[in-house]
Amino acid sequence: MHDTKPRPARPRPDGALKLKAQLFCGTEIAMGPGKAQLLEAIDLHGSIAAAGRALGMSYRRTWLLVDSMNRCWDERLVATIAGGGSARGARLTPNGRAVLEAYRALEERLAAAANIGIEPLLARLRHAPLAPGSSEV
Amino acid sequence: MHDTKPRPARPRPDGALKLKAQLFCGTEIAMGPGKAQLLEAIDLHGSIAAAGRALGMSYRRTWLLVDSMNRCWDERLVATIAGGGSARGARLTPNGRAVLEAYRALEERLAAAANIGIEPLLARLRHAPLAPGSSEV
Repeated sequence: MHDTKPRPARPRPDGALKLKAQLFCGTEIAMGPGKAQLLEAIDLHGSIAAAGRALGMSYRRTWLLVDSMNRCWDERLVATIAGGGSARGARLTPNGRAVLEAYRALEERLAAAANIGIEPLLARLRHAPLAPGSSEV
Repeated sequence: MHDTKPRPARPRPDGALKLKAQLFCGTEIAMGPGKAQLLEAIDLHGSIAAAGRALGMSYRRTWLLVDSMNRCWDERLVATIAGGGSARGARLTPNGRAVLEAYRALEERLAAAANIGIEPLLARLRHAPLAPGSSEV
């Protein structure tokens, strides 16, 4: 839940499948893999700046992602904690925690559904591609 | 199955969710939404060039995508039909048709799994985002 490090690549066949779920509010991405990871980092580090640093993003980009999430949902997902100076922290709101948990549950449903009956498809995949231009088309 | 036109955007709440499944062979995308669409266009138009034109892609890019697909699977997905001149056609191989159908079935499983219990999450989404910078973080 709180691990913000990139997940290591898994060996085939499971690692051959990549799933992505995005929720849109108009043309803005209200929730997706990057924003869910950012919410978890804010929950872990207790600050927008520290979460951004942990994910290797600029403060400006991190802030824009938080602002976007907060504007897309009926209640904001991240709240800043009043306090003096640069140490001002941030936390997930109850709505932020609920949206994050529902998104992770969605991802788990997708992964479970994908695994049903995918073996014949994965079995047709090569372990590595042939050299470019060798396909004789 | 043979419709290569972009699908019209659906109204919320269904339209708010976007799912993407990609199958990798090493670092190459062996199958994904764009390649599945290209296979359907080749099936419809009977030629790589015509399929690329229908999808608004250059011949070079179209050919590279076909070459990539053909190198990622145990048997190629697209075969060219021997013939004279520029009218030489292309068709899906039995393997190409099987991979395409299995990929579309995977997408259907994902969509069905996503829909189960997603209503509470979608209900929290605004119909349109608030103005940038208004989130008070």
